[in-house]
Amino acid sequence: MRVAVDSLGGDNAPGEIVAGSVAAARRRPDDEFCLVGDEAVLGPNLSDAPANISLRHASEVVDMGEEPAVALRRRPDSSVAVAAGMVRAGEAEAFFSAGSTGATVAAALLKVGRLAGCRRPGIVTMLPFDEPVLLVDAGATVSCRPQDLLNFAILGSVFARRYLSVEGDPRVGLINVGEEPGKGNDLAREAHRLLAASDSVHFVGNVEGREISRGVADVLVTDGFTGNVVLKTAEGVAREILGMVRGAMTSNVATKLAASVLRPRLVAVRDRVDPESYGGSFLLGVRGPVVIGHGNTRARGVENALLGLSRSGSGLAEASERALAVAQEQVTGDAV
Amino acid sequence: MRVAVDSLGGDNAPGEIVAGSVAAARRRPDDEFCLVGDEAVLGPNLSDAPANISLRHASEVVDMGEEPAVALRRRPDSSVAVAAGMVRAGEAEAFFSAGSTGATVAAALLKVGRLAGCRRPGIVTMLPFDEPVLLVDAGATVSCRPQDLLNFAILGSVFARRYLSVEGDPRVGLINVGEEPGKGNDLAREAHRLLAASDSVHFVGNVEGREISRGVADVLVTDGFTGNVVLKTAEGVAREILGMVRGAMTSNVATKLAASVLRPRLVAVRDRVDPESYGGSFLLGVRGPVVIGHGNTRARGVENALLGLSRSGSGLAEASERALAVAQEQVTGDAV
Repeated sequence: MRVAVDSLGGDNAPGEIVAGSVAAARRRPDDEFCLVGDEAVLGPNLSDAPANISLRHASEVVDMGEEPAVALRRRPDSSVAVAAGMVRAGEAEAFFSAGSTGATVAAALLKVGRLAGCRRPGIVTMLPFDEPVLLVDAGATVSCRPQDLLNFAILGSVFARRYLSVEGDPRVGLINVGEEPGKGNDLAREAHRLLAASDSVHFVGNVEGREISRGVADVLVTDGFTGNVVLKTAEGVAREILGMVRGAMTSNVATKLAASVLRPRLVAVRDRVDPESYGGSFLLGVRGPVVIGHGNTRARGVENALLGLSRSGSGLAEASERALAVAQEQVTGDAV
Repeated sequence: MRVAVDSLGGDNAPGEIVAGSVAAARRRPDDEFCLVGDEAVLGPNLSDAPANISLRHASEVVDMGEEPAVALRRRPDSSVAVAAGMVRAGEAEAFFSAGSTGATVAAALLKVGRLAGCRRPGIVTMLPFDEPVLLVDAGATVSCRPQDLLNFAILGSVFARRYLSVEGDPRVGLINVGEEPGKGNDLAREAHRLLAASDSVHFVGNVEGREISRGVADVLVTDGFTGNVVLKTAEGVAREILGMVRGAMTSNVATKLAASVLRPRLVAVRDRVDPESYGGSFLLGVRGPVVIGHGNTRARGVENALLGLSRSGSGLAEASERALAVAQEQVTGDAV
């Protein structure tokens, strides 16, 4: 697989982006990683990089504050636009960016293009609980129609088979305020009906916030507004609780001593819920895998994101488009 | 303050409801608590109850599965209907129920009635972080208009002064997917505009999920769908992380020994985030304080909910109605 990496996007670009890409390249010698960025800056850092790392020049970067579509038109030579353009031109199969999420989504839609049968893209992110679960949409489409949630379920199922190695049909749940089918707002009620009626989705019903972390589904679908708030709330609460536990442990000499025995295991818990352990979110619904890194990602996050891409990305767009077509045929068939 | 307590609603009714009410009555000798339920069952349990506990007969209970409005019409003698009816008749100032939330909200709307100027009620719940924050709406109104969110902000501010003892103007944040005013779906964007324009609200702007636990606001407003999902996600993640920490501690003899030193402090963390520590949510926007207990609440939760009511509830409806009227005058004044 050949991946274009936007090495100018993100709080820690280009240093951490380059370091993570080099680490991934060493672990995946059969894949190729093309760093998109300023040749004058990147070149000297790559003197002992492995042979499967290459360079593509781009001089500009889209700022976090800019309106994405406007910025892309104004800066055709920006790193995210060049990386997306490589996918469009067939020079790369996938691209990665830790820059502005809006700009990455806009570049993917404008340059890589949508899958047939998919009106709106969705960001899929892993929630790293004891039993990992994939959340779609984590923020690409803040206003959704019911059909968009059905599409997220179909795309998320294809992705779960690859990324989580789920065998058979991944279980899909709908985030809602109660278990019964009639619960929720108009969107949730109508999405429930579509999901229950689809042969393409193994729908397990509504899932309440409290059950999200309990392994009741492999894929959870919701609109991008709710999904983004859920994801960030989960991250914030995890950080807060671990902070409280740390505070409880450093309160006196006896607890500090006890804490030193437990530290390695607690570090393992912290690492487990650390977004850097998986490192990136996939944009589903576009014609080539696109991976969105956390803005503050470091080398480990970039490496893990690129390894996840290498593991799950090959042929993802084609498999997704087939699944959407099969689902559409069922609807058409039912109507006849 | 005189409070009607639905003692038939909830998973642990009537035993835990009665025990919690008796405990609250002993700690608040100046308040009166009227237990609504089956006299034949409750009577014998109250032989040594304090003098400020009384009884009111009700023979039926609304089941969790019943459609609330239908159930209330069908069962006028149900405990939640009788408790709400006592507020309507002036025999109580407030009522508590840990039964079906839908039935409690319906009984409050049908029997207690809405405040002038408030189209839709909102449930306010405390998120028990290092710096506690109040969330409105936690699930009463799943489909909101922008004006509803402004009302929640006004009602939440009045409540925060009493319940959290915030001095001056409580800081109000809008749950959203980004910090900038233009972020979010239609509801969030328009609510942002109304909140920013209101003199009645000390608006601090959009708050992302990750910041919810960081003490950036005293009151967070959102629609009841998002709020319910946020609340339950926070509860679920807190439970999950504490479970992971417990698992890390019991893995071998050395860690178990170390854990025994830390246990009291970790129990304190667990208790802090345990919903039973505050025990109930207030329904705002109705003509008398209505407190909704967790369905699985035990005596400690009931006691804490009733103590919170005793502390915050007196005159709450009147103060809320005045605040709504002042905000409305400003809007009318601006339009002139």
